[in-house]
Amino acid sequence: MNAAEKSLTSTSGRSFRDAPPPGAPEAAKPLDAWLLAKVSAFLNNPPLEFAIRDGAVLSPAEPAAARVTFASRAVLMSVLADPALRFGDAFSDGSVTVEGDLVSMLEIVNLSNTMNGKPETFLRRALRRPRTNTLAGSRDNIHRHYDIGNQFYSLWLGSTMAYTCAYYPTPTASLDEAQVAKMDHVCRKLRLKAGETVVEAGCGWGTLALHMARHYGVRVRAFNISREQIMYAREQAQRAGVGGQVEYVEDDYRNITGRYDAFVSVGMLEHVGVENYAELGSVVHRALGGRGRGFIHSIGRNYPAALQPWIEKRIFPGACPPALSEMMRIFEPWDFSVLDVENLRLHYAQTLRHWYELYEAASDKVRDMFDARFVRMWRLYLAGSIAAFTTGKLQLFQVLFAPGESNDIAWNRADIYAP
Amino acid sequence: MNAAEKSLTSTSGRSFRDAPPPGAPEAAKPLDAWLLAKVSAFLNNPPLEFAIRDGAVLSPAEPAAARVTFASRAVLMSVLADPALRFGDAFSDGSVTVEGDLVSMLEIVNLSNTMNGKPETFLRRALRRPRTNTLAGSRDNIHRHYDIGNQFYSLWLGSTMAYTCAYYPTPTASLDEAQVAKMDHVCRKLRLKAGETVVEAGCGWGTLALHMARHYGVRVRAFNISREQIMYAREQAQRAGVGGQVEYVEDDYRNITGRYDAFVSVGMLEHVGVENYAELGSVVHRALGGRGRGFIHSIGRNYPAALQPWIEKRIFPGACPPALSEMMRIFEPWDFSVLDVENLRLHYAQTLRHWYELYEAASDKVRDMFDARFVRMWRLYLAGSIAAFTTGKLQLFQVLFAPGESNDIAWNRADIYAP
Repeated sequence: MNAAEKSLTSTSGRSFRDAPPPGAPEAAKPLDAWLLAKVSAFLNNPPLEFAIRDGAVLSPAEPAAARVTFASRAVLMSVLADPALRFGDAFSDGSVTVEGDLVSMLEIVNLSNTMNGKPETFLRRALRRPRTNTLAGSRDNIHRHYDIGNQFYSLWLGSTMAYTCAYYPTPTASLDEAQVAKMDHVCRKLRLKAGETVVEAGCGWGTLALHMARHYGVRVRAFNISREQIMYAREQAQRAGVGGQVEYVEDDYRNITGRYDAFVSVGMLEHVGVENYAELGSVVHRALGGRGRGFIHSIGRNYPAALQPWIEKRIFPGACPPALSEMMRIFEPWDFSVLDVENLRLHYAQTLRHWYELYEAASDKVRDMFDARFVRMWRLYLAGSIAAFTTGKLQLFQVLFAPGESNDIAWNRADIYAP
Repeated sequence: MNAAEKSLTSTSGRSFRDAPPPGAPEAAKPLDAWLLAKVSAFLNNPPLEFAIRDGAVLSPAEPAAARVTFASRAVLMSVLADPALRFGDAFSDGSVTVEGDLVSMLEIVNLSNTMNGKPETFLRRALRRPRTNTLAGSRDNIHRHYDIGNQFYSLWLGSTMAYTCAYYPTPTASLDEAQVAKMDHVCRKLRLKAGETVVEAGCGWGTLALHMARHYGVRVRAFNISREQIMYAREQAQRAGVGGQVEYVEDDYRNITGRYDAFVSVGMLEHVGVENYAELGSVVHRALGGRGRGFIHSIGRNYPAALQPWIEKRIFPGACPPALSEMMRIFEPWDFSVLDVENLRLHYAQTLRHWYELYEAASDKVRDMFDARFVRMWRLYLAGSIAAFTTGKLQLFQVLFAPGESNDIAWNRADIYAP
């Protein structure tokens, strides 16, 4: 049993089976039972129990992994009308509750609802809401997620404050170990040499730039449009005494200037929008000028599809994880050679499990900072993200590339894995 | 200096500078001089000398890496009218000769003629000749290249008879070492375990299937539509005593039946045609049935473009190396997860250098088997292929993938590089 399978069978310890059995459904509730059957059928009758609070209960034939309770028939009908969007809102405001393991429940829903080899149709793709990742739109979108408080993020991201997929040398590594290993994995793939220059697009709290400067002896210019993150990053660099080696620039990646030996972007592409990929490619093309190496790390998909609608609305406005065919729009117009793609999907599931644990342990503090609704909203986001990676709805791609005319590329990948 | 750069400066030993200087151009030849200037300008005035036999000579300002001589003004005008197609034919029939290093000359032409970030337009793509990779068309196309004689190929492919990019653990490895290392590299990426079943699409002379059966204890069904190759492969398997473990099937990949733990295809995709990729994906989808691993090794491109026209006409009818965005048409409609892409472009250049050396050493035998025209035609094909890989006009992609819903995937890639 591998790590991902283990998570499918793990439980949170809270057992809904200990709850008192619901009262016998009243005579007036056949409609409720019918509606619950609809929910179950919509999900291809998964091993989940569905209930209306103090009312009808629908149990599956096999043992249920979790029970989903709707506060009322009205809530149930509202969710049924637009489940992709309203389930999340109802969970956040407490009108839908889940007893049992939330991650397992979401994994079951994902697997019940597979697209079975039918990717997004052309029509559905055309009907996607337009993204708003203009310069101003991006600033607003990023502000809404990343500027809600460094103190909040520090509760559950671990000591590195890296808010992207870690790299676990072994599945039992700690979160902090894996985040440091991720930074080294990136630097090794880029074959950074002391004295080189690096430009980073979307630097988060600045940890990777700092790590590169400290441990690889390079000079880094790191761009980010989140003010809170930039301020935190500058303070860290000063404290670490590498302020002269790392420059944090509060600006959009589209405004990158200068020539560099390497371009790196970890966890920004999700916010760029497919319509801006050719422009991103032109920025990298200009920054590398026919030599050097580039590296992009991003959440992705097995096929083109929009982000889960509730996540896009409530958590990541303007975000879209690309399929590899879409990512190629960055590289192909500029004759970049893709040298190496690695999919770290299960590593992101593990990273998220660690975040989720820390988040749950700090949920009282989060409630004090925000409110109970916020606690539940982010609980669903983190649990849903674990489930998305364990069930293959999301991927994590690391792509190493170089200008097509450059032969200054590594002979093979053995050096990345040399002790 | 890396291996590719080295090749750019190497010479074949035949020095055109030792040739007697051409006679002074006659008064009647200003048109010839003008035409030669046209050729040079068309290639952005590369460091090459251009001449008409016993006539005009155009020398570049810098030292020339090679001299290209046209037999007459008529030949020159014919090549100028359609260089991509007619240069190859003129070289083959001897009416264009190259003194100096042929590979260097072709590399210079490639680099003089870069597309500078402008990939194929939609119109040019639409105007590409339709490919003919129907079941019958493929059989004909494959017959024309692979059935010209096992004895011929055995002159220059080395003892493994592997006619695909090798994997050089170090740049100094021998051809045979690198071909064996390639087979192990493929098997390691596929994480083959004893007792598993493998289906191979396009098995060449059967060496990989044999290697898998012998060294990894798997059972292999290997498909190929080249009769000469299949007959050779069966004989080898009998001789090696693994006839019961490897079945060579003379049939098209589209007719693969049964379920397998792994799908593998090394060097067939170039012949499939982009229009058949979704169907190839469906074949793999059916063969794996929601579990297992898949692996495709193929020549590719940094952006969509047709194969060099002369190569497509004279050497590989119906062939087209895909861009990664095009390759995704195999995977995305079937929810396959791309796990690992490795670009081995410089390894193919090295493989081709070894083939080219062996080919040149056996050129008298090749002349006896065919004729002088054939010798030159294949000389240009091999030298041109080296140049295409060293200048980034062609890539070599190895793609590992798995059904999207499967979590039975390797934790990371360290095991591939473990001693």
